[in-house]
Amino acid sequence: MDIDYVAEILQGSPLAMARVITWLENEDERARSCMEEIYPHTGNAYILGITGSPGTGKSTLTDGVTWHLRNKDLTVGIVAVDPSSPFTGGALLGDRIRMTRHSEDRGVFMRSMATRGYLGGLAQFTRGAVKVLDAGGKDFVIIETVGVGQDEVDVMRVADTTCVVLVPGLGDVIQSMKAGIMEIADIYVINKYDRPGADQLFSEVRYRVDQDASIKDRAWVPPVIQTVAVEGKGEEELLEAITAHRVYLEQSGKLLEKRRDRIREETLQMIHHELFRIIRERLADNRRIEKMVEEIMDHKLNPYNVVEKVVNEWLPSSRLK
Amino acid sequence: MDIDYVAEILQGSPLAMARVITWLENEDERARSCMEEIYPHTGNAYILGITGSPGTGKSTLTDGVTWHLRNKDLTVGIVAVDPSSPFTGGALLGDRIRMTRHSEDRGVFMRSMATRGYLGGLAQFTRGAVKVLDAGGKDFVIIETVGVGQDEVDVMRVADTTCVVLVPGLGDVIQSMKAGIMEIADIYVINKYDRPGADQLFSEVRYRVDQDASIKDRAWVPPVIQTVAVEGKGEEELLEAITAHRVYLEQSGKLLEKRRDRIREETLQMIHHELFRIIRERLADNRRIEKMVEEIMDHKLNPYNVVEKVVNEWLPSSRLK
Repeated sequence: MDIDYVAEILQGSPLAMARVITWLENEDERARSCMEEIYPHTGNAYILGITGSPGTGKSTLTDGVTWHLRNKDLTVGIVAVDPSSPFTGGALLGDRIRMTRHSEDRGVFMRSMATRGYLGGLAQFTRGAVKVLDAGGKDFVIIETVGVGQDEVDVMRVADTTCVVLVPGLGDVIQSMKAGIMEIADIYVINKYDRPGADQLFSEVRYRVDQDASIKDRAWVPPVIQTVAVEGKGEEELLEAITAHRVYLEQSGKLLEKRRDRIREETLQMIHHELFRIIRERLADNRRIEKMVEEIMDHKLNPYNVVEKVVNEWLPSSRLK
Repeated sequence: MDIDYVAEILQGSPLAMARVITWLENEDERARSCMEEIYPHTGNAYILGITGSPGTGKSTLTDGVTWHLRNKDLTVGIVAVDPSSPFTGGALLGDRIRMTRHSEDRGVFMRSMATRGYLGGLAQFTRGAVKVLDAGGKDFVIIETVGVGQDEVDVMRVADTTCVVLVPGLGDVIQSMKAGIMEIADIYVINKYDRPGADQLFSEVRYRVDQDASIKDRAWVPPVIQTVAVEGKGEEELLEAITAHRVYLEQSGKLLEKRRDRIREETLQMIHHELFRIIRERLADNRRIEKMVEEIMDHKLNPYNVVEKVVNEWLPSSRLK
């Protein structure tokens, strides 16, 4: 390498950060040694997640939170992850003009990714991008993601504090509270609070939080923050809630626990990814997989005994059922 | 097993099919031997995919197509896959009362699944459910899925013929045509054709199909079918288009090719899945992963050299970069 990307990242170079994130995105092998070298310099950024349906105003909120953090002289990295649905048109995110307030500010690095089809999964990729910004010296890394599925829930597990954004009138509250969002929400934000139905939504969310049996650890009950992000209203309260959650995590030892869980998950994922890569490569040798497929087509084999055979051959001591 | 589920499935028992699909859903190990035994009896059903945004009338279309197939004395299995987003509230699908016309008909088996978080992915699970219905003797298996992301595109790859349903007024056409839908659409259906804007949408879709550079193989140009599913209008034309596509696939040899690709993909996915299981099991032994995580936390190791170590140990001859 002519350019020492690692050194550049550690000095906070936006170009170097952008380049290495692109490598991650493209599964370019140059990412690997970089990531390994920057690893010891990670773990300093506080990771904030902001998620919600399309149209809830996540970008505006992210922008507002960023502005408040910059006012405290904290640097911010933003990873905007879009599931890039074929239907919801996520791929358009990258084209949108946004974050104009911060576009000239070296203290803010923003990367939006219209992601689809990563072999290693969206969460693994996000973890990588967050590490680059973390090593680049950002005090805060904000992960902004359109919540439409399990992928995004997984992405949110990368965050230390997760804000779930709701708005009045979308009528999706009951469902979202049903289907797993309560597991990940540390803070609820009701944005567009100037809209009709805001108070009712507020009460409903509060009620559901109070009823939630899964909050066994009542040391932290997710607060419900009211905002009108386009007018900057409620952003300070949101910042306070984020800070309060951070203090809670730090003092209770839960931050360490979260990070330990994240390292475990990350390591397991990486091993899985690498083993599969190698096995796939081996199966391509001599068209071995093609021959197996032919035998399955001819009913001489079935996929179940192929899996058994392959796994027994390469990971012999594994006890297969 | 007291009940011989394999024999029951091969006789088309709805209870046995439902049970084994539930096992697949719960990753119950009893599914495995069943799936292996039914495998030789699969490959006879024609697999139809119907996908589109929420509110496009997919269920009504599925219902109509089913009715026409039943009139031809063909049996039908339906797998309704819902991404069960924490936000879009897919989990409600299962509660909906639907398919009433066929609820008393033994020739129709319907299973709706509000799926999330399958370890093996939605597509793998769907493949399993389709196989159960296939082995159960259904002539057609219809996969109906709400298209909101990569997951659903993957699900649709399981189908022989994929219908993409659009409606006037949703304003998402340009995006959907951009972001990968064109790869999977064999037939476009413009449903709710009695709504304003239908003709314009029709022209737009036709134009984009004509412009699509990816249709190199001009032997099949996706037709655009106009329907008003609630009135049953256009359903026969849809059936004809489906039949025409099937004939095209069979005569061109592409059906065989598709099925070969599917077996390859499926086998690789199963290996991927099995690796995941083995890795977790092995690394849980003697709390090995926990020790590694501690060493990473203490900066004595990093995830990258852990991966290298584990992979070298398990696949010694692998050439790691």
